[in-house]
Amino acid sequence: MMFSQVVMVGAGNVASHLSSSLSKVIGEQLAFYNIKLENSLSMSKFHGGKVLDNLEALDRDSLIIVAIPDDAIPEFIERLPTHLSVVHTSGSVPLFPRRKNSGVFYPLQTFTKGIPVNMSEVPFCIEASTPDFEAKLLALAKMLSDKVKTVNSADRAHLHLAAVVACNFSNHLFLLAENYLKEHHLSLDMLLPLIKETAQKAQRLSPKAAQTGPAVRRDQNTINKHLDALESKPELRELYADFTKRIQHEHGQELQRNPTKD
Amino acid sequence: MMFSQVVMVGAGNVASHLSSSLSKVIGEQLAFYNIKLENSLSMSKFHGGKVLDNLEALDRDSLIIVAIPDDAIPEFIERLPTHLSVVHTSGSVPLFPRRKNSGVFYPLQTFTKGIPVNMSEVPFCIEASTPDFEAKLLALAKMLSDKVKTVNSADRAHLHLAAVVACNFSNHLFLLAENYLKEHHLSLDMLLPLIKETAQKAQRLSPKAAQTGPAVRRDQNTINKHLDALESKPELRELYADFTKRIQHEHGQELQRNPTKD
Repeated sequence: MMFSQVVMVGAGNVASHLSSSLSKVIGEQLAFYNIKLENSLSMSKFHGGKVLDNLEALDRDSLIIVAIPDDAIPEFIERLPTHLSVVHTSGSVPLFPRRKNSGVFYPLQTFTKGIPVNMSEVPFCIEASTPDFEAKLLALAKMLSDKVKTVNSADRAHLHLAAVVACNFSNHLFLLAENYLKEHHLSLDMLLPLIKETAQKAQRLSPKAAQTGPAVRRDQNTINKHLDALESKPELRELYADFTKRIQHEHGQELQRNPTKD
Repeated sequence: MMFSQVVMVGAGNVASHLSSSLSKVIGEQLAFYNIKLENSLSMSKFHGGKVLDNLEALDRDSLIIVAIPDDAIPEFIERLPTHLSVVHTSGSVPLFPRRKNSGVFYPLQTFTKGIPVNMSEVPFCIEASTPDFEAKLLALAKMLSDKVKTVNSADRAHLHLAAVVACNFSNHLFLLAENYLKEHHLSLDMLLPLIKETAQKAQRLSPKAAQTGPAVRRDQNTINKHLDALESKPELRELYADFTKRIQHEHGQELQRNPTKD
């Protein structure tokens, strides 16, 4: 292994999933450090590995992975001795300057405790302050995933923003659909195959080619029925009207001439 | 089989996918009718089955499946001889009255030509004017899918509206993410594992429990960075701000007290 040990800081979703994968490939070389000792104890209990009660004594071949809330990262990293090699796992926090070995180890995935993730398919965005450190981080990431890339801070921020739009916001649409169905005593279960297929189509088709539904078909009759049905739900109605307009604007006139049923 | 033959009307996405599945279970009992003969010829060439040039001579044990654009359904069905058994495949068109055997055969899925769909997992919403006809339609649908339900017109319309919100609108978010990445010379490919996982999490968790990202974490620092990055994209910026507000409103205060990194 390229580091004498890997110290995970954090006990949230990213820290848990990374620790679970790391423990399989580096075993006892994984250790935990948290300001709250009980967090390290529970991580160690779950994933194996040592618990550290301070980071001062670490040798310079160790790696510290800081997987804590974005807002807390700068202060935490700035307090660490400068001889230590440190990465964070955030999409939107820049690379830290003023350290010899400073890096980013960003898994571009949504992690939820208790939901297993196939880490080998997770894109890892790696950035480092020196070519040597970058090579080591790339090698570590490749032990976990087949999709490892060097990505600079600007591109990482763009990817993170796009991920929020494509995924966090989509999940919120699922919630709005569920709330609407519940009010009519129906379950989101009926839509799950459709949700799955929508994501699977994105793997094979561009989102432009994959778009279906009344907006892109310019089926004004159905659109009007839906807007009428949402008369008493002004917020959802506004979202419906806004997306319909956006979809029709984005798809221009090209589909108006060739409507198909879907 | 419960019908002497099944006549598919239409040549779009739904007609193609249904024909492909039907031909596997009813073979030569599948036939095609379209106002444009060339559509029937190409459907027949692709899926097998006879081409009909009129529907007047059909016997009363036949079933006509009308899978054409919603706007064209009423006129088409009203012209058919009233002794014929007819269903349409639309989420939003009501059951036709004034016919003995009138029904709905609605597959709740997004279909795109050339993208295979596992029909056995597609929920079918069945509605019929008589119990006898309903029983026959349920039996036919069960030859195609394991997820067949009787659903009345009002509930079907609710499901269709929710499907538009959860799926058509999500797909548009994928397009917005792709457009944003393209402007920065990045590819949506990097987000595909995340898109897949977002849909897979919905199969196991409620959308409320599955929500991650800066909005639900109330990570105002990241939200501000994203809004700044979108300064020159007012439309996407507006959508970002709107979803952030909606997510925070929907999730109330409960997550503010216990932020986790994801």
